[in-house]
Amino acid sequence: MKKNILVIPGDGIGPEVTTWGKAALEKIAEIFGHEFVFDEALMGHAAIEVTGEPLPDETLEKARKSDAILFGAIGHAKYDNDPSLKVRPEQGLLKIRKELGLFANLRPILLFDELLQASSIKPEILRGTDILFFRELTGDVYFGEKIRSEDRNTASDLMIYHRYEVERIAHKAFQAAQQRNKRLCSVDKANVLESSRLWRETVQEIAKQYPDVETEHMFIDNAAMQLIKNPKKFDVVLTANLFGDILTDEASQIAGSMGMLASASVGESTGFFEPIHGSAHDITGKDLANPLASILSAALMLEIGFGLKDEAKLLVDTIDEVLKEGFRTHDIADQSTNRFKVLGTAEMGKLVLK
Amino acid sequence: MKKNILVIPGDGIGPEVTTWGKAALEKIAEIFGHEFVFDEALMGHAAIEVTGEPLPDETLEKARKSDAILFGAIGHAKYDNDPSLKVRPEQGLLKIRKELGLFANLRPILLFDELLQASSIKPEILRGTDILFFRELTGDVYFGEKIRSEDRNTASDLMIYHRYEVERIAHKAFQAAQQRNKRLCSVDKANVLESSRLWRETVQEIAKQYPDVETEHMFIDNAAMQLIKNPKKFDVVLTANLFGDILTDEASQIAGSMGMLASASVGESTGFFEPIHGSAHDITGKDLANPLASILSAALMLEIGFGLKDEAKLLVDTIDEVLKEGFRTHDIADQSTNRFKVLGTAEMGKLVLK
Ligand SMILES: CC(C)[C@H](C(=O)O)[C@@H](O)C(=O)O
Ligand SMILES: CC(C)[C@H](C(=O)O)[C@@H](O)C(=O)O
Repeated sequence: MKKNILVIPGDGIGPEVTTWGKAALEKIAEIFGHEFVFDEALMGHAAIEVTGEPLPDETLEKARKSDAILFGAIGHAKYDNDPSLKVRPEQGLLKIRKELGLFANLRPILLFDELLQASSIKPEILRGTDILFFRELTGDVYFGEKIRSEDRNTASDLMIYHRYEVERIAHKAFQAAQQRNKRLCSVDKANVLESSRLWRETVQEIAKQYPDVETEHMFIDNAAMQLIKNPKKFDVVLTANLFGDILTDEASQIAGSMGMLASASVGESTGFFEPIHGSAHDITGKDLANPLASILSAALMLEIGFGLKDEAKLLVDTIDEVLKEGFRTHDIADQSTNRFKVLGTAEMGKLVLK
Repeated sequence: MKKNILVIPGDGIGPEVTTWGKAALEKIAEIFGHEFVFDEALMGHAAIEVTGEPLPDETLEKARKSDAILFGAIGHAKYDNDPSLKVRPEQGLLKIRKELGLFANLRPILLFDELLQASSIKPEILRGTDILFFRELTGDVYFGEKIRSEDRNTASDLMIYHRYEVERIAHKAFQAAQQRNKRLCSVDKANVLESSRLWRETVQEIAKQYPDVETEHMFIDNAAMQLIKNPKKFDVVLTANLFGDILTDEASQIAGSMGMLASASVGESTGFFEPIHGSAHDITGKDLANPLASILSAALMLEIGFGLKDEAKLLVDTIDEVLKEGFRTHDIADQSTNRFKVLGTAEMGKLVLK
């Protein structure tokens, strides 16, 4: 199989980790005889530095022409501390999601048995958890009109949904539920928000077409609680953009660390694969980042982007093995025991490739 | 001390639990020689049934005349399952918050040592946690304009903040931090939302007036994760209405159960005290609800509303003692051991009063 893959390292630890996601894809190509052709492009702070734009036209063009994109992370402390800056790294990520029509963000909460202990949640609560999040990615308050009054004393963002936006992701989520444990939980705040009432109405409507799936509706506040109280009760979780952002970061504690979770954004054409962790300025360049989320992003690209199940499985199994052998990065190492061999980013990357 | 207290039982388990919050106040009045004069009023589904309105004028009038309000819970399955209903219970709660100017919602995460085991989070992660949330309560997407298009295919809610709204709650939060461990974490989504950028800007400005408080800004997605990863790192948490709704429900797992958390809403005049749990239709009338959050709401009324510290302490200490003696309601009983004596709502209420 021949595929064109665009690598966008982005900001912070992005470059450090995508090195290993890319290397994993190269290794897979070698083993299975595929031809992956790589190109690279700028986005975020890295792009602003060079071109003044968080998403240069050249990057967008390359993205459109590629079969899949491997992305790293976005964001920089400079902008976080100065809310008044007009050009911001995150605009690049939001724009590419919108331009490529990446309306469905899939975030599987993959639990490695070996990492049960790395979580702040009790292992007996976690064991057996297997959740697949469908986060809507191109609507909601992320993309609604943003207004700052002239005196700068009032600011607003429009939380807005159109029925078709809810329908198309709902179908994807229900179809996934049919392939899994046939349970779907849709999360909203319909007791307060009109956009959530449209969301709930629409999901109720679509649910009728999937009578084999058991559908539940939950308020976001309750969901944020249930997710850590009893994560096993969830199978597919369907949410709007903002609620999905919050819930999936929270859910990273189920997997032991943000450093272990990857996501796939799909929609109209090219798929976009990235770790769910951020740019992590505080550990950038220190060889402390966990490269496994990027390697798992590569696995998602193989499985969801290219339909290469065996190839994806090899990557996941290899990570499992490395963990079983006691190797850890800092974020997933239990500091209270010396049972683990704690590795830097590069050592862990190399080990998985071997 | 003479005080007029309005009891609004509300919906679902509201009446069952406020019975005990009220009884606790009566008992305290008796012991300490105060005069608490009680009145009662309707709100939510209970009020809609009788008057057609979720917040009847009579309730609002009584509320304005009282010194403090003890509230139960709001909401009903009928409305949750039918997003198209125009008159909804929650409108009553939102309206009373707005009408009484209750802009600051204080949610202390009170950890009873005895309940460390009741949480899904590991005891060693929890031990020593002491967080006080300041949730803004009369602004945000809760109160911004709600629009449904004529064809009903588009729906929106305006997420909006004015600088003065952020300032007044920020001052309260910083002042509380000065009395506590002098750390404040402000939560927003300033990397995406304009209203969050106003929020962050304003908090940064106000922070200069409290140089003795260590201020940190965190994105909501990260906060949802950190809260369960390392709850001890938080002291005062300051958030907008929606983010506060989500984070505090999530934080209830730190306290072992929603059934253990109370909140105080304060602002321009009369204070409003309520459990953070909801109406819990599924257990209504089954004598399964935990009355402790309502009794803790009464304690907050005594302390924050009336400045009666000893009286509040007596209630909290009594609950502590009852827990130490092994008594539990269903929500906080560890089913895997028979070390606990599991009580119904009424039995637990009576026991605390004794
Ligand atoms: C960086 C930020 C804009 C982004 C988001 O909020 O969508 C990130 O948190 C994510 O979850 O991918
Ligand atoms: C019932 C609902 C409107 C309310 C809210 O969202 O504010 C509740 O969840 C709360 O936290 O008090």
